[in-house]
Amino acid sequence: MALITPEQYEKSLKARKELNVYMNGRKVKDIFENPNTRTVIEANKASYLWALDPESQDLMTALSPLTNDRINRYLYVCRSREDLVAKAMAGTFAAERLGTCIYRCPGLDALHSLAATTWEMDHHLKTDYHHRFTNYLRWLQKNDLVVGGALTEPRGDRKKRALDWPDPFLSVKVVEKKSDGIVVRGAKINISGAYAAHELLVLPQSAKRKGEEDYALAFATPTDAEGLTYICQYSPYSAEREMAEDIYELGNPLFGQRETSMVVFDNVFVPWERVFHCGEVDYSIKLVERFAKTHRMTCGGTCKVGFMNLIIGACKLLQEYKGLDKAQHIHDELMEMVVLRETGRACGLASANLGKEEPEGSGVYLPDELMGNVSKLNICQAFWRVMALAGDIGGGLIVTLPSLKDLKNPETKRYVEEFLGFGSEVPTEHILKVTKLLQNWTAGQHGVGTWHGAGPPMAQKIMIQRVVDYEYEKNLVKKALGILKK
Amino acid sequence: MALITPEQYEKSLKARKELNVYMNGRKVKDIFENPNTRTVIEANKASYLWALDPESQDLMTALSPLTNDRINRYLYVCRSREDLVAKAMAGTFAAERLGTCIYRCPGLDALHSLAATTWEMDHHLKTDYHHRFTNYLRWLQKNDLVVGGALTEPRGDRKKRALDWPDPFLSVKVVEKKSDGIVVRGAKINISGAYAAHELLVLPQSAKRKGEEDYALAFATPTDAEGLTYICQYSPYSAEREMAEDIYELGNPLFGQRETSMVVFDNVFVPWERVFHCGEVDYSIKLVERFAKTHRMTCGGTCKVGFMNLIIGACKLLQEYKGLDKAQHIHDELMEMVVLRETGRACGLASANLGKEEPEGSGVYLPDELMGNVSKLNICQAFWRVMALAGDIGGGLIVTLPSLKDLKNPETKRYVEEFLGFGSEVPTEHILKVTKLLQNWTAGQHGVGTWHGAGPPMAQKIMIQRVVDYEYEKNLVKKALGILKK
Amino acid sequence: MALITPEQYEKSLKARKELNVYMNGRKVKDIFENPNTRTVIEANKASYLWALDPESQDLMTALSPLTNDRINRYLYVCRSREDLVAKAMAGTFAAERLGTCIYRCPGLDALHSLAATTWEMDHHLKTDYHHRFTNYLRWLQKNDLVVGGALTEPRGDRKKRALDWPDPFLSVKVVEKKSDGIVVRGAKINISGAYAAHELLVLPQSAKRKGEEDYALAFATPTDAEGLTYICQYSPYSAEREMAEDIYELGNPLFGQRETSMVVFDNVFVPWERVFHCGEVDYSIKLVERFAKTHRMTCGGTCKVGFMNLIIGACKLLQEYKGLDKAQHIHDELMEMVVLRETGRACGLASANLGKEEPEGSGVYLPDELMGNVSKLNICQAFWRVMALAGDIGGGLIVTLPSLKDLKNPETKRYVEEFLGFGSEVPTEHILKVTKLLQNWTAGQHGVGTWHGAGPPMAQKIMIQRVVDYEYEKNLVKKALGILKK
Amino acid sequence: MALITPEQYEKSLKARKELNVYMNGRKVKDIFENPNTRTVIEANKASYLWALDPESQDLMTALSPLTNDRINRYLYVCRSREDLVAKAMAGTFAAERLGTCIYRCPGLDALHSLAATTWEMDHHLKTDYHHRFTNYLRWLQKNDLVVGGALTEPRGDRKKRALDWPDPFLSVKVVEKKSDGIVVRGAKINISGAYAAHELLVLPQSAKRKGEEDYALAFATPTDAEGLTYICQYSPYSAEREMAEDIYELGNPLFGQRETSMVVFDNVFVPWERVFHCGEVDYSIKLVERFAKTHRMTCGGTCKVGFMNLIIGACKLLQEYKGLDKAQHIHDELMEMVVLRETGRACGLASANLGKEEPEGSGVYLPDELMGNVSKLNICQAFWRVMALAGDIGGGLIVTLPSLKDLKNPETKRYVEEFLGFGSEVPTEHILKVTKLLQNWTAGQHGVGTWHGAGPPMAQKIMIQRVVDYEYEKNLVKKALGILKK
Repeated sequence: MALITPEQYEKSLKARKELNVYMNGRKVKDIFENPNTRTVIEANKASYLWALDPESQDLMTALSPLTNDRINRYLYVCRSREDLVAKAMAGTFAAERLGTCIYRCPGLDALHSLAATTWEMDHHLKTDYHHRFTNYLRWLQKNDLVVGGALTEPRGDRKKRALDWPDPFLSVKVVEKKSDGIVVRGAKINISGAYAAHELLVLPQSAKRKGEEDYALAFATPTDAEGLTYICQYSPYSAEREMAEDIYELGNPLFGQRETSMVVFDNVFVPWERVFHCGEVDYSIKLVERFAKTHRMTCGGTCKVGFMNLIIGACKLLQEYKGLDKAQHIHDELMEMVVLRETGRACGLASANLGKEEPEGSGVYLPDELMGNVSKLNICQAFWRVMALAGDIGGGLIVTLPSLKDLKNPETKRYVEEFLGFGSEVPTEHILKVTKLLQNWTAGQHGVGTWHGAGPPMAQKIMIQRVVDYEYEKNLVKKALGILKK
Repeated sequence: MALITPEQYEKSLKARKELNVYMNGRKVKDIFENPNTRTVIEANKASYLWALDPESQDLMTALSPLTNDRINRYLYVCRSREDLVAKAMAGTFAAERLGTCIYRCPGLDALHSLAATTWEMDHHLKTDYHHRFTNYLRWLQKNDLVVGGALTEPRGDRKKRALDWPDPFLSVKVVEKKSDGIVVRGAKINISGAYAAHELLVLPQSAKRKGEEDYALAFATPTDAEGLTYICQYSPYSAEREMAEDIYELGNPLFGQRETSMVVFDNVFVPWERVFHCGEVDYSIKLVERFAKTHRMTCGGTCKVGFMNLIIGACKLLQEYKGLDKAQHIHDELMEMVVLRETGRACGLASANLGKEEPEGSGVYLPDELMGNVSKLNICQAFWRVMALAGDIGGGLIVTLPSLKDLKNPETKRYVEEFLGFGSEVPTEHILKVTKLLQNWTAGQHGVGTWHGAGPPMAQKIMIQRVVDYEYEKNLVKKALGILKK
Repeated sequence: MALITPEQYEKSLKARKELNVYMNGRKVKDIFENPNTRTVIEANKASYLWALDPESQDLMTALSPLTNDRINRYLYVCRSREDLVAKAMAGTFAAERLGTCIYRCPGLDALHSLAATTWEMDHHLKTDYHHRFTNYLRWLQKNDLVVGGALTEPRGDRKKRALDWPDPFLSVKVVEKKSDGIVVRGAKINISGAYAAHELLVLPQSAKRKGEEDYALAFATPTDAEGLTYICQYSPYSAEREMAEDIYELGNPLFGQRETSMVVFDNVFVPWERVFHCGEVDYSIKLVERFAKTHRMTCGGTCKVGFMNLIIGACKLLQEYKGLDKAQHIHDELMEMVVLRETGRACGLASANLGKEEPEGSGVYLPDELMGNVSKLNICQAFWRVMALAGDIGGGLIVTLPSLKDLKNPETKRYVEEFLGFGSEVPTEHILKVTKLLQNWTAGQHGVGTWHGAGPPMAQKIMIQRVVDYEYEKNLVKKALGILKK
Repeated sequence: MALITPEQYEKSLKARKELNVYMNGRKVKDIFENPNTRTVIEANKASYLWALDPESQDLMTALSPLTNDRINRYLYVCRSREDLVAKAMAGTFAAERLGTCIYRCPGLDALHSLAATTWEMDHHLKTDYHHRFTNYLRWLQKNDLVVGGALTEPRGDRKKRALDWPDPFLSVKVVEKKSDGIVVRGAKINISGAYAAHELLVLPQSAKRKGEEDYALAFATPTDAEGLTYICQYSPYSAEREMAEDIYELGNPLFGQRETSMVVFDNVFVPWERVFHCGEVDYSIKLVERFAKTHRMTCGGTCKVGFMNLIIGACKLLQEYKGLDKAQHIHDELMEMVVLRETGRACGLASANLGKEEPEGSGVYLPDELMGNVSKLNICQAFWRVMALAGDIGGGLIVTLPSLKDLKNPETKRYVEEFLGFGSEVPTEHILKVTKLLQNWTAGQHGVGTWHGAGPPMAQKIMIQRVVDYEYEKNLVKKALGILKK
């Protein structure tokens, strides 16, 4: 069986060449020790564990027709509506256990987009991309590797074409074509967990036009390739984790908030067998759109559902800890969260249940375009509302919470215990920890992250406007009113 | 085949004894001629037509295991998730063609509730209700009859039990038990299209307790039974229809807005073979809840989706008629409507796709309880929002529209044509008619109707609060924080 | 004193020449008898009564510096912030007593716009408009006349200039200039209560540019001038009122919903002394904007506050009538309405309290531009929400209500009394009437009317975008961050 | 003149005895050096500067009738509606310059509550509290001191009375009465900036009943009194500030996010002349309510308006820096923020303009109760919305931002400059700094802080429900419908 253990995963990562990872003005010496980069490795390890755990194996693995073996679901391309439903449920399962990004999902969604589009290019253009891609995918599956996905780019002035930007590298670009491969330069930004993946899949972020062939580009690269540099995010939450003596002082102890980096490609060489799109400008937008609808189902209809479960659970615990079980307004707020969660779930399931083979004949199943975008657009509003509701239930203490260290310092311990225990029968430590978890959700980066993960709301709106034509609806009206059509 | 024609339906209705139907202070002489009651008959006729039309027959009929024949879907009790999905899609199909209530849906949902609960009562209590019910259902199917459903009651002070109300008949009550049947007195209010059904199914509206056996009551009655009186609603829309010279002056020409009546049972006799629940107080609430979740999926996730299609179509037409295709804010508003519609659709589909056999072994499939209630709660907010958006797009003319007669009157015709044609290439009449359709949707009874059809929002909230227990969510949090469970 | 009685007002109207008023395909023989046009006359009569009633005289009159006499507030141009606050309070006072449009408010707001802009034109262009206007205003005040205001026009394709429309009369246009006056042709649409005013003030609806001088036009005309035709709205509510035997069967018995007409100017002659703007294209937009901000304060911050008072009162009564005083969710909904009402009131008061003399030196006070537009934009959302909340509290009976005639018909009376009295101690008639009043508010034209009265939301958004420049806010940020300005 | 300089303020603070201040498990050695406690001192210093700065002196000072001298507005009790308006404007002025809490506002609002209520107690009960209070206030003014306010308490199970809590000190309590003063024990939580004030005013948090005399307590204490301990909040933002090498790496460089502490009173002695309420249980609720309405006007209608100015300014700058000035959806989002800001401002101004003397004869002016609560309730929703909108405009970079140190590190500098400069003409550093400011607002503690500062929304709802009686509204309806009152 191709399923490796969490420890084997970590070991295989350590076998890589040293990566250039920078954070907070310094090079990260060891991403396995750095408390912030470590969280990504922990999250990925969990995904290996679930695949082996008998309780979750059915959901978190699948049978690959390429390897005829059981593989991790995060390497499996959907071949039916049932697969899409399972993918949705796996997303929720992961999210509610991690409380952060499952860093393998952009890579999986990039695999879907590539599977469909390389098939289509070969079909239309007689290229050989799908064959290359299939070999690559089989190799990933056989070795049970983590693959990241990278689309977002700095880009220059949106009113101008790439060719007119002062710096041509604001989008990743081919700078040299060789007999054995290509050399690329540019950067991908906001990339989740890149340094903890074995491989990185790079896709275009936007439509390309004639003349922009050097930007019409998709490829895979090992994360330790020469020329790659990772510049990590650094936020208040990063600082707090660096300062912590014990991760259980933190709001999401093991897995943290989402960790990203800018990935710089400074003349990185990519061999041809890992190049899946190079110059066919008409197909760049297809790669983007297919990634988008798959990823929007995931971000909109599955992982936020899992996050909401954690938030709802924490709010309920605090209600009980504080003896507020008679407070009707808290019941109402919990119920509002439940309704928002179920609505998110419904949209995710509908995206999957209305999914279809695309392109026909490819064997690849993708979610419904309209519903995938609707899922994401809805969840953005919903998540901010859930944050706000949780912020109300959690109370001012979310902001004013002392450190859990103050509960250990003998000079302050008795005061913290007396006055922040609220006379409850539950240990004060539990109250503080659950409140800290809510701080993580309501006073951190999740709101903005929800807006922009899988593209900002405007991106969904543009796509919806493109998909809907209103002819069906107009005809219903004309018939009802006896207006004849010309 | 058991499928009769629309004309046969109308003829069979005319074969009934004369009904006591009152409207606007007078007895309705002929419900087939009265312009308001007529709309219900037209809507029901459409449902017969769809079952025969090859284009819609697959969706609008099903194969009955009771008759081994193709029957109208409005008489078919779901036996699988696929059936529930088909039921949802049929609801949207009907709604977008009628633009009003499909009056057969409460009856169908009552059939579902009775099928499940009579099976359960027989199973637990060794009663004979399910056998009676099955015979009754087979008879309905063989004769292709319209059956209405009736739950809502006046009820007295909610803080008191029925036994303490000054008037015992504020809920339908058995007043006499005879060897061949029972005699009942009371009233059902807000009943959609009752007088145009062949049969009426009466279910309790609320839980019953020991001592309230005479209120624990479900039965069927022909609509022309002695002792029945129908007192119809009368609204501005009723008056307008009475005043119209041509139904095409109206906003929904053929089918109107939803028509209801109060149905008074003044000592109506019901033979035992049509009594399906009588005194088993513990089962009243089951009849209510099973009806509710089925009906909430329908009202929340299917028919409003169809209505929104009409509204969206009309808004789009007006945008085009008025040359506003460059107005981005109208595109944005249309898209917001589309998102609300798709969200409604997603919840309806999820209710069906998560449905299950209930009770186990009964063969009856009902939608998911939580999702059914979520559907309804969401659509209430969504529908008001869609009305508001359509009101903005439709413009002030929705309010200030002259009669279409002013377009025929030679003294005003040229002014109306000149000044309400807005210089458009479309005939002024089309602009006025589409605006009139939007008046029907945005300046009429649909907002309030959406709140209260299938129960007001508070009813859904109570049910959701009853269904959710939060244990799963609390445990996720405790595990994440390393808090041990006791 | 210049204050006449309601009866004198009605008598003076009757002294006019016969008007060409059309409704529902026929000429209205007598606007004093027609049940729909009559409601406007009743509303105007109330405004005369309030001015004489000692309890309201302080609020509803003012001292005119032109006549040195006490005049009706609806003829008084504000000269201070205190005046603007009084104007706001008067708006609420009128609205909560009428439950419909006070038809004198567009005229009053047109007077404000003309007072400021004719002063400015004279000041800059050495015209004589302000002098003419002042004479006209003095005459109105001395004779205590009702003056209506008319801005909205059909207009053609918004992407084209007026000069390029197929029909030049889609905006009111000068067709001839004579020594003694001008002749105009065109139409004003959506005009509230025009036929029940003595005079009509006509203002441009939009900015004019060079070449469009014939459209840059403001004037006054008596409502019985030759060439005027009134084509009235006709809605379900119109039909209902025509059918009623007793106005107390209706939801707003005396005053109805808002009545409008299209006013056609088919070669109407206007003498020069009543022309206040003619060809000075740069000043058209000023007339529009000054009218807009004054009217938006009124519609946004004052009259809807009064309407909400009626809705809130009716909801509270129904809660009490039905014995639901323990229902916390109804208390919550009432409170939400109160918050929306107070927010509306706050914006109206802020518009007034931040108002200023405009142009400086003119003596005319106008509300704050930004806040006036904010008032209107907020109230649109708020009013739909209040309608929805009231629709929930009012219950399904809002839709399914029988006629009050059914309470008089001996065949149905006892059933209606028994079953729609809900066992309450209050007469069933009261329950039905209060529910009817809520039907008037929640299932009628008020939602759409609120959007479009004083211009649709987009008009406010455009104005706000024009007013705000963000320089102040940007500088705050630059200072906080130590970023030096260039 | 009683106005001292910022430096004199800092010096006077340093003259205090050493305070027991704890943060992150350790004692804070020097609150003037600790980077987090330092921010509070900087904010207070700004308030001294504004009082001396000729540009702001008019707004930020007032003439005291007690000292006949110009004093800081933060020590001035309002004596007219104009004073209340000035207080509102000062709140906005401070907030938009600090971008955080002006720590002097709770103390000022406590002064208002005490001024009114001590006057009332003396008037009704012949106590001597107002005289004591007046002497105390004069002393504060003469010495130009910072006074903090402290109300919130841990409190035990809300379903039980204080007397039944397991720990009697969950609310501050008199433990001994002596001839020269009282001894108190308990804690106040969530107290903003306490350690940087000279004095602390302690008020009850809730109504007290007979038997709870020892909790009916208001007094003043120097912040260096024996028995006081301060346990500070510690959040991700605290850690980040500790880790920073340069405050200009931070989102609000000089003033940070709001800093609070729990203040423990472990047998603190208070001399009688600083006790302003002791045992008069009926007056505790008056102190609470008067503080609440004053503070809710401030939090709801003034300081959030200032914060929104900063957020709006930063969003506008980013729009310009990124060349997105043609993006209509960003203009729309900016406008929505402006509307929310102006609505907040309107409610604050209305609270002031509708304020009145309370109690009559006291000379103290307080804001309108209903409007004060409405202000706060509205701004909570508005602020979350503004955060969300800013999060959309600011982009994913808000989350994924590297440290500004990465812009100095030569190994990463060129990549950060190239790829996060987006080809803009503005220095990359400016883009990063403005984005960092938005991180501070959208991904930090401001949402939850807005809910709970001045009491959670439920507290406002309870108060509104208490204030409104609906009689006026009910009578309007009865008159309109011709229903006679009994």
